[in-house]
Amino acid sequence: MALELGRRVAVVGVGCTPFGELYEKSAEDLLCDAVDEALADAGCERERIEAAWVGSVLSPFGGDALADALKLFGRPITRVQNYCASGMDAFRNACLAVAAGMHDVVLAVGFEKMRDGGFARPNRSHPVVDFGERAPHVFALSANRYFNRYGAGKKTLAAVAVKNHRHGRLSPKAHLRMDVSEETVLQAPMVYSPLGLFDCCPTTDGAAAALICRADIARSFRGAPVRPLGIGLAVVSGQPYYRPSFGYVGFEATVRAAEQAYAQAGIGPDAVDFAEVHDCFTITEILTYEDLGFCRRGEGGRFVEEGRASLGGEKPVNPSGGLKSYGHPIGATGVRMIYELVTQLRGQAGERQVQGARVGLAHNLGGPGAVACVSILGG
Amino acid sequence: MALELGRRVAVVGVGCTPFGELYEKSAEDLLCDAVDEALADAGCERERIEAAWVGSVLSPFGGDALADALKLFGRPITRVQNYCASGMDAFRNACLAVAAGMHDVVLAVGFEKMRDGGFARPNRSHPVVDFGERAPHVFALSANRYFNRYGAGKKTLAAVAVKNHRHGRLSPKAHLRMDVSEETVLQAPMVYSPLGLFDCCPTTDGAAAALICRADIARSFRGAPVRPLGIGLAVVSGQPYYRPSFGYVGFEATVRAAEQAYAQAGIGPDAVDFAEVHDCFTITEILTYEDLGFCRRGEGGRFVEEGRASLGGEKPVNPSGGLKSYGHPIGATGVRMIYELVTQLRGQAGERQVQGARVGLAHNLGGPGAVACVSILGG
Repeated sequence: MALELGRRVAVVGVGCTPFGELYEKSAEDLLCDAVDEALADAGCERERIEAAWVGSVLSPFGGDALADALKLFGRPITRVQNYCASGMDAFRNACLAVAAGMHDVVLAVGFEKMRDGGFARPNRSHPVVDFGERAPHVFALSANRYFNRYGAGKKTLAAVAVKNHRHGRLSPKAHLRMDVSEETVLQAPMVYSPLGLFDCCPTTDGAAAALICRADIARSFRGAPVRPLGIGLAVVSGQPYYRPSFGYVGFEATVRAAEQAYAQAGIGPDAVDFAEVHDCFTITEILTYEDLGFCRRGEGGRFVEEGRASLGGEKPVNPSGGLKSYGHPIGATGVRMIYELVTQLRGQAGERQVQGARVGLAHNLGGPGAVACVSILGG
Repeated sequence: MALELGRRVAVVGVGCTPFGELYEKSAEDLLCDAVDEALADAGCERERIEAAWVGSVLSPFGGDALADALKLFGRPITRVQNYCASGMDAFRNACLAVAAGMHDVVLAVGFEKMRDGGFARPNRSHPVVDFGERAPHVFALSANRYFNRYGAGKKTLAAVAVKNHRHGRLSPKAHLRMDVSEETVLQAPMVYSPLGLFDCCPTTDGAAAALICRADIARSFRGAPVRPLGIGLAVVSGQPYYRPSFGYVGFEATVRAAEQAYAQAGIGPDAVDFAEVHDCFTITEILTYEDLGFCRRGEGGRFVEEGRASLGGEKPVNPSGGLKSYGHPIGATGVRMIYELVTQLRGQAGERQVQGARVGLAHNLGGPGAVACVSILGG
C-alpha cells in the first residue's frame, strides 16, 4: 500500500451543530449550520466546495438533500449508508477523492434527524432507547458474556457512563450535559439486562462537517490543518452475533479496521494519545479498548475503572462525552468524532482539552457490529 | 484537475446477471453471480478483492449485504445511495480509491430486487410501472413540453422504444427480448399521458459488477483492460421540476456531469462512438441526446427517427437495448452500462456489436433528474 494519506490530504475546517432534541431545526438547517461552521473555521467560501460525501442512515434521500440545503448544485455529491459508521465512511471516501487528485477541496458531512422526521415528513419521534430496537439486546449479550468471562459486573459498565457524562458536561454541544453518579446508573430503569437506561446512548438530532483539501494547499486556509494518517474500514457479516469472532466479547470489524489504520499510519496503539470511540452502549466502549489494542483482552473493565481512560489519565477516551453524553445522530457521529479530534489536536477543546494531544483515533461501529471505521489523525 | 484517470485505473473484468423477473434468485444469488462472472472474466481470485462499493436504492443494508453474499469479510465495503445513479456512483468511488493509491484491486457492484423483496423479506412485488410512482408523471411533463416546443409527437417517442427493443432482442441478458412495432407502442395502455406502457422501462431484478485495478497491473489479468477516461457526477435540486434549468426539456445534472467527464477525458461528444443512456422513459433518451451534445436542442427527435442512434447509425445509443428492453434494477443499471461499454469496447458484443467502437459513454440519471453520472471509457 503506497498511499501516504497524510502527505496528500488535510482537514482544514470542522463544524458541528449542538446535538440534542432539535425540534425547531429541519435537517436542512442542521446541514447548513454544520457546513457553515466548517467553512468559517477554514476561512473558505461555500463555492469552493468541489464535491461532497454525506452520511446518513435514516434519510430517504441521495446527494440532493445536501445540494438543496447548501444550494450547491452541479457538483458530485455521494450519499453513503453504512449504518452507524456512515459518517466516518463519508469522511473516508472524501479523503480518497482528494488523494486521487480528482478534487482540491471537498466536504464530508453526516447528519440525522431522529427526534422527528425532519424534511417536513411525518413525525416519527422515538423514545430515548427506540434506536435500540435490536441494538440493546445484542450488546446486552456481550455484556453478560463479558461479566461471565472476566468477572466484571454492572459497576464496571457504570464507570463508562460516569466518565463519559463527566466529560460531556465539559462539552458545550453535548446533548446530555449532566453528571451522573454510579448510583444513578445502577438504579436506572432496565432496558435489556444488564443494560440500564444510562448504559445506552440517547436518541439525538445533529449534523457535523469536515472540510478536506489537498495537503499542499492546506496552509492557504485559515484553520490549522490536521492530517489523516490512516483510515480503515472493515465490514464483516451482517449477523456478527451469529458468527462471533471473539466469543461475543469483541468486534472483528473494529480489529480489522484498526489494523488497516495503524498500518497506514505506521504506528501502533501506544502512539495514540486519545480516542473517540463508539460507546453506543457502555459495554461497547470497554470491548473497543480491547479491540483497538489500548489494553489486553479482559482488561477493558479495569482500564476505565482505574481512570486510565479519563481526562487526565494515560489515554483519555471520549473526552467529548462520547455517544453516551454527546448523543448519537447516527450518520453524524463519525464526522462529529473527526470534529472532536481536530479540535483536540489544535488545542482548542477548552475545559475538555487532552493535554499533549498529538495523535488521535476515532472509531465508528455499526451494523450492529458489522461495520467499523477507524481514523487516525495527527496535528 | 491534474488527475488522468485512464493512466491510473483500468477495468479488467465485468459481469452481469440475466435481467428479469428472477423470483428464484435471492439478492445474494444475484450479487454472487455478477461478481463471479466479473472475476472469471478477469481471471482473478475472489480473495484479491481489497475493497468494494455497492450501489442499491431499495436495500435496507450497508456494505454487509455484499460481504455476506461473497463471504468477503474484514475489508472496506461502502454502500452508495444516489437514486437511479447509485450503480455508476459506486463505480466512480471505486475508481477514485484505486486512483488514490489506497487499493490495487477493487470491485464496483450494483443490484436490486424489485419483483420481490429478496433477502427473505416480505414480497413487495410491483406491477410493471409501479417504480413510476412519481417518475412517469414528471417525465410526462417533459414529453408534453417537448412536443409543444419542437412539434414532436408520440411517434417520436415510439421511435426510441422500437429501436431499443430491436437492439435488446440481440442482448442475451435483456429482460424484454422482443421486437415491438410502432403500432404496438402507440396503442399500448396509457400510463401518464403521453407516456404509454411501452414508453416506460420495466421493473426488473438484476445485478452487475466491474473489477477495477491499478492501470500498471492491468495486463496481469486475463480480461482485456478498458480505461475510464472521465467520470462526472452532478447533483442538482431534488425538485428539478420545480427549478427547471432547460424549460423542462433537458436535465442540468446530465449537462454538468457530461461537462466534467468530457473535460477529464479531453474529448467532446463527437469523439464518442456509442453510448448507453438512461432511457427510463422514451422521452428521457431524446432529452439525453441533447444534454450530452450528440445533437442540438430540439433535434433529439430527428436524431432517433433518422436512425442515427441505431446500430449501424452514426452514433448507436443503447446497443444493449437500454433500460427500456434490458430492464432497470435500479442500483444495478449504472454498473450494467459499464458492463456493456467494456463488452463493446472489447469487440465482444456479438450481434449487437457497434462496429469500430473505441470510445463509449455511459449515462445514469436519478432523482428523477436530480443526479446524473457520466462515464467515458476507452479501449
